[in-house]
Amino acid sequence: MITRKDAATFFTRGYEKYLPHVSVDCVIFGFHRAELKLLLLKWKQANIWTLPGGYIGRRESLEAAAHRVLRDRTGLKNVFLHQFHAFGSTKRKEASIRKLFGILGLPVSRDAWPLGRVISIGYYALVDFSRVRPQADYLSDTCAWHAIDERPPLAFDHDDIVTKALETLRSSLDSPSLVATLLPERFTMPELQRLHEAILGRPLDRRNFQKKMLDRGIVERLAERRTGGAHRSPFLYRFTTQT
Amino acid sequence: MITRKDAATFFTRGYEKYLPHVSVDCVIFGFHRAELKLLLLKWKQANIWTLPGGYIGRRESLEAAAHRVLRDRTGLKNVFLHQFHAFGSTKRKEASIRKLFGILGLPVSRDAWPLGRVISIGYYALVDFSRVRPQADYLSDTCAWHAIDERPPLAFDHDDIVTKALETLRSSLDSPSLVATLLPERFTMPELQRLHEAILGRPLDRRNFQKKMLDRGIVERLAERRTGGAHRSPFLYRFTTQT
Repeated sequence: MITRKDAATFFTRGYEKYLPHVSVDCVIFGFHRAELKLLLLKWKQANIWTLPGGYIGRRESLEAAAHRVLRDRTGLKNVFLHQFHAFGSTKRKEASIRKLFGILGLPVSRDAWPLGRVISIGYYALVDFSRVRPQADYLSDTCAWHAIDERPPLAFDHDDIVTKALETLRSSLDSPSLVATLLPERFTMPELQRLHEAILGRPLDRRNFQKKMLDRGIVERLAERRTGGAHRSPFLYRFTTQT
Repeated sequence: MITRKDAATFFTRGYEKYLPHVSVDCVIFGFHRAELKLLLLKWKQANIWTLPGGYIGRRESLEAAAHRVLRDRTGLKNVFLHQFHAFGSTKRKEASIRKLFGILGLPVSRDAWPLGRVISIGYYALVDFSRVRPQADYLSDTCAWHAIDERPPLAFDHDDIVTKALETLRSSLDSPSLVATLLPERFTMPELQRLHEAILGRPLDRRNFQKKMLDRGIVERLAERRTGGAHRSPFLYRFTTQT
């Protein structure tokens, strides 16, 4: 638990522990009930939503910083994390950060180090929705999943970061090992199709989709079926081991 | 022309103009005589080779900084430049930079800002070899092309940066607009094949290669042939306009 005093120390002397001017931002995707979800933070006492992110410790690698942010917000370790782009426009920071500091009653001197320009390196993660215990940070009062199409507008250039992450994810859909991280070990063909549709943002033809997955040897059908539904019992599939 | 005094000012007060802790490094590829070449800098009075790179101006975007480095070293503007990865290991900097400062007779106080840890964002460029006028910077006495397989060992983690750039370039070979930037407007099929072979680092079958290029509609054969050679006059091709 980080106290208000810790937060004040971070704002006045955080540069002793962290590198100024460079950060990581994490686009954390989960899949639940046929929807692609995004994990977002809401700042304390302000209606400002952002991606989880953080500065890089002076003795911490870039990669380790991204894993730390992910672990702190989700409780998950050893998760697939993919660096996709560095964002370095001169207009990244807005008045909103200054406003927030005021609301929180934190020192806002003109040359406070977190007000300086920041170049941020974007990572995206694909996580098992059911295993995540969202955890707010000391700047936020909420950490919560949002359906990708119904998310609130994000602060800074975080909407651009999400758009770029989604583009990268779409162009990686042919990599089964990546998609596998968003599904349970055994799944039905409609579940796999809905995941692809959620990432692509458009419907796919059922027959063509099933044919493509089987022809390419990406998935294999198991002897079991899913039981317990009201009507049919669909076959279960899993990703083939060579992927 | 940058003088020794300018260089000394850069080392003592450069942080006023540039952001500390973050830089760009450019992997500049050219293609000449069937070889993939790399543009490298040799530091003054030291046998240390590096990639061209630089800090980011406080009022300059990340993208603009990469273009500036490329323009300063090659004389080229509006060149295809692709951001491919950010490098942020804690072990990026070595004693070599301190050694160099000493050799150059520049101030080397323990807390000089360029001795601090730097996270570097890698860009690769594909340039027309014939249009480049290599230009050394104030830290270097040579800026020169090297065949990719015969390059000297590079300082810092620059060999890792080259390896990653090459991996990205290889996985982008299916994008004709990218390859087009390394060839003249009209080229022969053997020239196109040699470019692919140089990037992939292995020989390709002539018949299969030609068939693949034509079947996929990437290139089209022109009515003209190249004349002037001792023996045959090979057909000329160009990339199809839809690419």
